[in-house]
Amino acid sequence: MPDSPRFLILADGDFGPMTSKTANSVIRYLPDRVVAVLDRSQAGQTAADILGFGGGIPVVASMQEGLVHRPTAVLIGIAPQGGRLPADWHAWLVEAVDAGCDLWSGLHTFLSDDPVLVEKARAKGTKLLDLRRPPPDLPVASGAAKATEALRVLTVGTDCNVGKMTAQLQLIRSLNARGVRTRFAATGQTGIMIEGWGIAVDAVVADFIAGAAERVTIEGAENADVVLVEGQGSINHPGYSGVTLGLLHGSAPDAMILCHQATREYIGDYRRASWLRIPPLTEYVRMYESAANAVHPSRVIGIALNTYDLDDAAARKACEAAAMETGLPATDPVRFDPSPLVDAIVTARTTLRAPRPRSAIA
Amino acid sequence: MPDSPRFLILADGDFGPMTSKTANSVIRYLPDRVVAVLDRSQAGQTAADILGFGGGIPVVASMQEGLVHRPTAVLIGIAPQGGRLPADWHAWLVEAVDAGCDLWSGLHTFLSDDPVLVEKARAKGTKLLDLRRPPPDLPVASGAAKATEALRVLTVGTDCNVGKMTAQLQLIRSLNARGVRTRFAATGQTGIMIEGWGIAVDAVVADFIAGAAERVTIEGAENADVVLVEGQGSINHPGYSGVTLGLLHGSAPDAMILCHQATREYIGDYRRASWLRIPPLTEYVRMYESAANAVHPSRVIGIALNTYDLDDAAARKACEAAAMETGLPATDPVRFDPSPLVDAIVTARTTLRAPRPRSAIA
Repeated sequence: MPDSPRFLILADGDFGPMTSKTANSVIRYLPDRVVAVLDRSQAGQTAADILGFGGGIPVVASMQEGLVHRPTAVLIGIAPQGGRLPADWHAWLVEAVDAGCDLWSGLHTFLSDDPVLVEKARAKGTKLLDLRRPPPDLPVASGAAKATEALRVLTVGTDCNVGKMTAQLQLIRSLNARGVRTRFAATGQTGIMIEGWGIAVDAVVADFIAGAAERVTIEGAENADVVLVEGQGSINHPGYSGVTLGLLHGSAPDAMILCHQATREYIGDYRRASWLRIPPLTEYVRMYESAANAVHPSRVIGIALNTYDLDDAAARKACEAAAMETGLPATDPVRFDPSPLVDAIVTARTTLRAPRPRSAIA
Repeated sequence: MPDSPRFLILADGDFGPMTSKTANSVIRYLPDRVVAVLDRSQAGQTAADILGFGGGIPVVASMQEGLVHRPTAVLIGIAPQGGRLPADWHAWLVEAVDAGCDLWSGLHTFLSDDPVLVEKARAKGTKLLDLRRPPPDLPVASGAAKATEALRVLTVGTDCNVGKMTAQLQLIRSLNARGVRTRFAATGQTGIMIEGWGIAVDAVVADFIAGAAERVTIEGAENADVVLVEGQGSINHPGYSGVTLGLLHGSAPDAMILCHQATREYIGDYRRASWLRIPPLTEYVRMYESAANAVHPSRVIGIALNTYDLDDAAARKACEAAAMETGLPATDPVRFDPSPLVDAIVTARTTLRAPRPRSAIA
């Protein structure tokens, strides 16, 4: 990973709280590295105007205007369905490489397969980073993840884009502060951008989903007491459920945290493409535990709600309702104190892993 | 598909009833096209000696000896775990191309990515067919398979390699004989070899498993009353469950046939790598129906048993026991009359699809 890139984020036409997941997470977790966002439709505003966080990061109307802010890298900040590069962005990327920028992409279409960009980047000495390109020689899962000494905690969801990665990133600091050495295992392009390593399990050849999950889980578990494995998709998502189940079986979690956007009623409706009504949380608990237990015993130990579009009172009420419905601790770990989920993980570790001598806890 | 190839099948070291699935299915369904099998460890025997079917097809000890039988194509007849080409076969493939043979492969490692083979094949004017190479621009599943007029029947299994493809291929003739226009939608390399079309859903990028399944289901449903969609893996297979669930949701079956090898106790034990005890058939019925119903209503309507390693009496007893346990029709459609499963499909069609005017039934 290059040291301290300064990012110009491309999110043209889609920069918003629910539509530009990659952009938003990079702004949330690496704010000092973001110099501007390119979205013609919202130029002149700031990240905070649009997202509610991200401070004064400016939204600009063109690549030329973005380059004024001296980025060292252009990062593709939307994750379009299907993961492919919008055709009209190509010219901007060429412009960016000509200006000496690296390109960071999490799309299924690899920039480093594009002859024009490859030639430009070679000539300029810049890098094309395809964060979704799988490593070679992935294994078929062997069940090896079950042997990690670290407690394995996977986030699972009621849909895509409900906050599975964010929930975990919010817990790491609190867990470490309690002396629980915690690492995050990224399984998607955004997590990889933020953490600097991982495998995008949705981009591997289908036979190797669980093998990729197993590898990333084992790597994340090294020198850790808890590994938080980034979840993907949903077990009843008509398009992506295969990734979800392969990840669930390959990572063999001891415990799961169920993530949900409190106001969402239909799978996919953040894209205004409503397929399927989201069943009750208790039904998800049943589905995930049943699916997981078919390979390795696992329990849902808490609920992480995404309440970004509710006011404080409604958000608290939503958390209480989720806790009441499921009998599990529930919070919005971005908005409120993440302690209920931190406690649940600490308890699961005590229950499922023998305590280690104090000297071994860093 | 080239017309009437004459196959020399490579199955070195692994030609046997349970270890060379691709070879065996091509021998079973296209016996007149197979001139020899290469397996050094069993040379001098015949296919029938080893499989119990396939007649006098000779097993030979070298590529040179195989070429005496004038093949026009060499077909890779084993599906090693992970799908990659054993290193020492490369020289044989070069020898075959030099002799003017096409190469047919269902491995994850594509022959047409091998510079030596590509150059040899170009020089000789022969073809390298990678049957597992996915088509470009697969969609994310949209739920479109649900709209087919044809009844969609998916085979599901207790493990890999239990007979999901074979069960369906055994039913096609009987269904057509009853005036039910039936097509087979291949989702794996062996089915593609036999049928001449399809998509290997285990070889696509993980985000597109369900999309590939949807496309192949819709294509198979054209001008058909019933489309039999080839199942893959198992919903509790630690390595391949993601492919299974993506295929289940993408193909949106109305009905499922559960396939099991009667004597198998552990998942993967045909490879002598036992991971997980196979739960009772009723538990699989519950798991598959629960998983399917999360996206589209579906029922298991019958059990297809693979009893190849039992005597007739034990095989009949196993079918009776499966029927008793599940309350569903059960048979070994290779060994016994497939009628119980044919009846179940005809009944499901009557129940779930309005009867069509007689003139529309070809």
